[in-house]
Amino acid sequence: MNEIVNCIAYSKGQRVAEPLLEDVHKVLKDESQFVWIGLHEPSEELLAKVQSEFGLHDLAVEDAHNAHQRPKVEMYGNSLFLVMRTAQVNEEGHTSFGETHFFVGPNFIVTIRHGNSIPYNNVRTRCENTPHLLSKGQGFALYAVMDFIVDQYFPVVQVMEKKLEEIEDKIFRDKPGRATTEQIYMLKRELLEVRRAVSPLVDICNRLMRFDIKCISEETQPYFRDVYDHVVRINEVVDNTRELLNTALEANFSLLSISQNDVSKRFAGWAAIIALPTMVAGFYGMNFKYIPQYESRDGFYLVIGGTALTCCLMFYFFKRSGWL
Amino acid sequence: MNEIVNCIAYSKGQRVAEPLLEDVHKVLKDESQFVWIGLHEPSEELLAKVQSEFGLHDLAVEDAHNAHQRPKVEMYGNSLFLVMRTAQVNEEGHTSFGETHFFVGPNFIVTIRHGNSIPYNNVRTRCENTPHLLSKGQGFALYAVMDFIVDQYFPVVQVMEKKLEEIEDKIFRDKPGRATTEQIYMLKRELLEVRRAVSPLVDICNRLMRFDIKCISEETQPYFRDVYDHVVRINEVVDNTRELLNTALEANFSLLSISQNDVSKRFAGWAAIIALPTMVAGFYGMNFKYIPQYESRDGFYLVIGGTALTCCLMFYFFKRSGWL
Amino acid sequence: MNEIVNCIAYSKGQRVAEPLLEDVHKVLKDESQFVWIGLHEPSEELLAKVQSEFGLHDLAVEDAHNAHQRPKVEMYGNSLFLVMRTAQVNEEGHTSFGETHFFVGPNFIVTIRHGNSIPYNNVRTRCENTPHLLSKGQGFALYAVMDFIVDQYFPVVQVMEKKLEEIEDKIFRDKPGRATTEQIYMLKRELLEVRRAVSPLVDICNRLMRFDIKCISEETQPYFRDVYDHVVRINEVVDNTRELLNTALEANFSLLSISQNDVSKRFAGWAAIIALPTMVAGFYGMNFKYIPQYESRDGFYLVIGGTALTCCLMFYFFKRSGWL
Amino acid sequence: MNEIVNCIAYSKGQRVAEPLLEDVHKVLKDESQFVWIGLHEPSEELLAKVQSEFGLHDLAVEDAHNAHQRPKVEMYGNSLFLVMRTAQVNEEGHTSFGETHFFVGPNFIVTIRHGNSIPYNNVRTRCENTPHLLSKGQGFALYAVMDFIVDQYFPVVQVMEKKLEEIEDKIFRDKPGRATTEQIYMLKRELLEVRRAVSPLVDICNRLMRFDIKCISEETQPYFRDVYDHVVRINEVVDNTRELLNTALEANFSLLSISQNDVSKRFAGWAAIIALPTMVAGFYGMNFKYIPQYESRDGFYLVIGGTALTCCLMFYFFKRSGWL
Amino acid sequence: MNEIVNCIAYSKGQRVAEPLLEDVHKVLKDESQFVWIGLHEPSEELLAKVQSEFGLHDLAVEDAHNAHQRPKVEMYGNSLFLVMRTAQVNEEGHTSFGETHFFVGPNFIVTIRHGNSIPYNNVRTRCENTPHLLSKGQGFALYAVMDFIVDQYFPVVQVMEKKLEEIEDKIFRDKPGRATTEQIYMLKRELLEVRRAVSPLVDICNRLMRFDIKCISEETQPYFRDVYDHVVRINEVVDNTRELLNTALEANFSLLSISQNDVSKRFAGWAAIIALPTMVAGFYGMNFKYIPQYESRDGFYLVIGGTALTCCLMFYFFKRSGWL
Repeated sequence: MNEIVNCIAYSKGQRVAEPLLEDVHKVLKDESQFVWIGLHEPSEELLAKVQSEFGLHDLAVEDAHNAHQRPKVEMYGNSLFLVMRTAQVNEEGHTSFGETHFFVGPNFIVTIRHGNSIPYNNVRTRCENTPHLLSKGQGFALYAVMDFIVDQYFPVVQVMEKKLEEIEDKIFRDKPGRATTEQIYMLKRELLEVRRAVSPLVDICNRLMRFDIKCISEETQPYFRDVYDHVVRINEVVDNTRELLNTALEANFSLLSISQNDVSKRFAGWAAIIALPTMVAGFYGMNFKYIPQYESRDGFYLVIGGTALTCCLMFYFFKRSGWL
Repeated sequence: MNEIVNCIAYSKGQRVAEPLLEDVHKVLKDESQFVWIGLHEPSEELLAKVQSEFGLHDLAVEDAHNAHQRPKVEMYGNSLFLVMRTAQVNEEGHTSFGETHFFVGPNFIVTIRHGNSIPYNNVRTRCENTPHLLSKGQGFALYAVMDFIVDQYFPVVQVMEKKLEEIEDKIFRDKPGRATTEQIYMLKRELLEVRRAVSPLVDICNRLMRFDIKCISEETQPYFRDVYDHVVRINEVVDNTRELLNTALEANFSLLSISQNDVSKRFAGWAAIIALPTMVAGFYGMNFKYIPQYESRDGFYLVIGGTALTCCLMFYFFKRSGWL
Repeated sequence: MNEIVNCIAYSKGQRVAEPLLEDVHKVLKDESQFVWIGLHEPSEELLAKVQSEFGLHDLAVEDAHNAHQRPKVEMYGNSLFLVMRTAQVNEEGHTSFGETHFFVGPNFIVTIRHGNSIPYNNVRTRCENTPHLLSKGQGFALYAVMDFIVDQYFPVVQVMEKKLEEIEDKIFRDKPGRATTEQIYMLKRELLEVRRAVSPLVDICNRLMRFDIKCISEETQPYFRDVYDHVVRINEVVDNTRELLNTALEANFSLLSISQNDVSKRFAGWAAIIALPTMVAGFYGMNFKYIPQYESRDGFYLVIGGTALTCCLMFYFFKRSGWL
Repeated sequence: MNEIVNCIAYSKGQRVAEPLLEDVHKVLKDESQFVWIGLHEPSEELLAKVQSEFGLHDLAVEDAHNAHQRPKVEMYGNSLFLVMRTAQVNEEGHTSFGETHFFVGPNFIVTIRHGNSIPYNNVRTRCENTPHLLSKGQGFALYAVMDFIVDQYFPVVQVMEKKLEEIEDKIFRDKPGRATTEQIYMLKRELLEVRRAVSPLVDICNRLMRFDIKCISEETQPYFRDVYDHVVRINEVVDNTRELLNTALEANFSLLSISQNDVSKRFAGWAAIIALPTMVAGFYGMNFKYIPQYESRDGFYLVIGGTALTCCLMFYFFKRSGWL
Repeated sequence: MNEIVNCIAYSKGQRVAEPLLEDVHKVLKDESQFVWIGLHEPSEELLAKVQSEFGLHDLAVEDAHNAHQRPKVEMYGNSLFLVMRTAQVNEEGHTSFGETHFFVGPNFIVTIRHGNSIPYNNVRTRCENTPHLLSKGQGFALYAVMDFIVDQYFPVVQVMEKKLEEIEDKIFRDKPGRATTEQIYMLKRELLEVRRAVSPLVDICNRLMRFDIKCISEETQPYFRDVYDHVVRINEVVDNTRELLNTALEANFSLLSISQNDVSKRFAGWAAIIALPTMVAGFYGMNFKYIPQYESRDGFYLVIGGTALTCCLMFYFFKRSGWL
């Protein structure tokens, strides 16, 4: 894939030009237009070019080069630097993360994708299909991409909720097992990662909604409430799942240890049942000259029958008491 | 049920007309009147009609169409969009949730019900029976419905408190059982859902009480304190129940594991009691030429009697020590 | 007990009249006086009369009729409605709760008691004995009753602290028992109730201390700091006790389960000691023609002696290893 | 010890007089001087005298008489009332608490000690040795005593940290024991008490640092940052120790229960090893006419040797599997 | 190493002089220059000299002499005193801490290192290589050193994350062991130390970013956002690791106790299997005159064969039930 995915100028929500990166500063002179550039893992040289075209701050460009930032928004003069983490469920059902950086200025927006994430072509197309909205400027483009990124967290948390349900089924329906302990732990690990990616967005959206930011027109601000809302909902799901996981861990341990205890208890019960006839047999095995029933033809059977009966009574009694 | 449940215009707290939806904008011209419309799971077309009649914001209408919003209040210009979750106890004793959306403007209020929830006809009737209150305008109508929705959470949390008491009884009075672990977990799950539905209302009521909102007259603001109060009380019950549930989970586990241990211990005790005579019998079963009491007629009975006595002493001692 | 307990007018801290409720509005005309009315579970009619005499807000009167409010303070115009929960230790050592509501206005104060609580006659008498303080107006009367109510929480939390100490003694000094688990749970339940009654008072006192409330003169505001202080102290005790209870629950479980395990371990140890001679006896019980010592007169005693010695050595070894 | 420990007037950081308490108001007329009085558990009469000399507020004096206040600072007009708890490690290694109250006004400071605490003579001497600092007025004297009190918490928390280390050694190096559970609980109890004494000081120092308090000159305010710093550090140690204690309690329980289980497991292993020869012996003890090896001279030894060998193999196998 | 590591004057980002400490005040007269001094564990005399050269506050100098401060920033007039803790991973894989203090004034910066920490020569060199940045003044020098210190926390937390992964592997892949409990505890202890060193930096950076501080030029403020960001990231890792450690402790305990129980259970199962033939043998060992199969040549083998078969069936059944 090319480093420069797109570089398009818009006026009143319509494409008006596809300038080369070097010519963007000419387009920028016309204040009724804005330029939307999409980059993918750009080289240092390309970033330097972008920086000089738009006059970006050194620190922001440095951050944009090194991925592995935490989500944040920073104002530099009248332009804005924003970092988001993107998430997708991969084929093994795990979450893989990427990163997207935004530079937004008076009449430009640059999106920079890092790591594995879906390209934003569809977002761009959808925006171009609603020119009355895109004509609100680069603020709307920013909203559209942020909304797209946040919406991709919903399948992620749904997979997690489903995993939790599977764990619950294992604990309460099937047999609680020791593998479940590991599954709970690993799900918690994933949850914490998602929370780290999502929770800073609450604050970021708040700032975009409330503060007076020049490069975002006032009429696009309500749109960020929408993103805010989604972020808060994802956060809630993550927090709930986390709390339930803690309880599930305890429940699994207690049911598992009880079910193991149970087997031990059962063995102990059987041992007690077997110990009695062994004792009786021992008595009849004693070497005395006079042993009751010694001469009797049925002595052997009588003793075995008697102890068998006693064992049955014990078994019945243990069962009734719930000990077996 | 019809999509449009009601569409009635009020003046000074009295019904003055039942306009068609298409004619509502004519009624709205008279500033001394307000219109109260009740919808139930409206189609996209109907919502579009409502939007054009009242000039609602795109984003709010989009939200109103997609249920599954979290409770929130949003101001768009001088109208207001509010989302609440409704709750009812169904026949199996579980909580089922619905959703209600409100649009409130200078002289209109629209309520939109989603999911299974009780219709608001009774609320409307009650409002019409107190015209001096309803004459305060659509703000009072908003209060009346919100109050009705929040009041329906009380039976929900009462059922939960009762379930907790049943769990307590099972743990401390009856035998602690492993089914109780699942009941605790499931109750916690339900609690978290209720909390998610109710806790955002604290903030919502605060904003309705404090902020200067044009479409809610100042004299209706104290009424929202009432709703606020109920919400805080429900929240408190939920939080308390949650904390008690955590303790109950631990208590159940500890009592259950102790009661199981107990049985094991008891078996072990009996095993020890039985082991002694078995050993003695073993000694008398040894093949030596000279065995004490061999010739004695009562040897057999003496040994059995002696060991029986020892066993009784052991039993008494174990009992006294609390080991059996 | 009568519904109207007292209705007395004060001027400069001295009783000046005992008007009928119907005539109170005449007294109110004299701004140098204030009326202090004490009610006990008033009927709806009486409350309506009080409402019309003092011009109270509908919502506040409705709340005052329904007990089971959470503690709160609400300003209605220039009068104030305050709810507190009262607590007492009853004869079984449990806490029973009541409720007291206050209406305070420009020159009146109405106290309404619900549930079982001590009447406020003594508070009134004490106030009348310090006319220089009572002359500060109805604000001081409000302080006096609030202080009295809060002071009654001290014995309540002291009983709880004593219960905690008893529980500690049971866990660490006596034998940890399973009844202790229930006691801990029940104490926690009570604590949560007390906290629910007391913790909102922090905020209430803060508002009475800080805000500019017309019906409370500036020179009485420092007195509410006193109440605030007591409330914070009670809260601290409740929070500490709660934290210690959580630890006590764990400690009790761990010591109890260990002490049970201990007995099992001991039985297992004795079983091992007994198993050895049984085995030896078994060997000597084998039916071989040539058995060592068979002919010996002392064979029987030699074997028994030898195994007894071995058992003693085992016992000594087990004891030394701390296994028995 | 006398009730009045000291009563000295200072001017420009130098002692200028030792007036009687009754004559203090004369000294106060000279605004360039300030009086520093030290009291120790004063009687009600003495406090009344102090109150009238300095014109203190009723509520503050009442508090100063009743010890057992929580730490707080209160402004009454242009004087200030401050309560601190003092702590010392006593001979048994436990923490004993005292209380010190301060009245600070335009040109006076009164310190009142309650309970067992070290007298402040040394602080006074040290202040007198740095007259350029003491000349900053009663604010500096307040700082000096507060700093002294807070510094005495350092040995207290150091003793606690040392106790925690001892507990860790017991858990991880020596044998985890059940006495450790009690030690952890008791240390937690002490920690909570220290926290109750120290944590309100954060807020108190903040107010002394930030607010505009007439009786504390602006140039002494930075000094309270110093006290603030120490308080925050003590708080941090307390919080860390508390968190580690919770983990230590769990670790102790788990290691203890595992080490007990271990012994049970070992007994069970030995029981299995002994059970095998007992069974074999049982078979050879059966009363059949034809038993293999019956006639053989070495039958007895062969069987014993064979089973012994099998037992050794079992032992080796169990050891290798980590079961013994 | 010398106490005075460096003392260099800069103008427009270039070295202009290396004055003696005594002559620094002369350099300071030229407002276009600033002096950057690096000290290492200075004596009290040296600090006194520095204090008089720059006119530092007594309290700050006192703090700078006593190491063991918590991280903080304090403004004294128009100069600033800042304390940071430095961390390094030592050879045994543990974290060793040091401390660095900064004095920053209108045109000077003094860095004071305590404990084992890397010297800041490289930072200085790097700054000198970017004169356009260093020309922003002492604020940039402060940023450069702070950034360097914070960056050294990344390897520290990476080692911790690696330790956590090793612990996870031990718990879930290898056998859960009791040594793991200690490792978890010790890692938690280290984490708490790191958190204590890092978490106050969030607040410190905030103040450097937001407040109007004379000695830090406005254009260097964005740089502190960078430090802030790193600090927040380290904090997040620490918090996540801590939460996972708590879960790991529980998981380790539960898996360990289950794996031990398992062995006990297995022994109990074998005991039950062995008990049966022992009982049968006991019956055939009874001394009756008529025993079935007594005369048969194969009686012995029949009985042994029969019981062996039964034992095999039991074994098969136990295996299938997951009890062995």
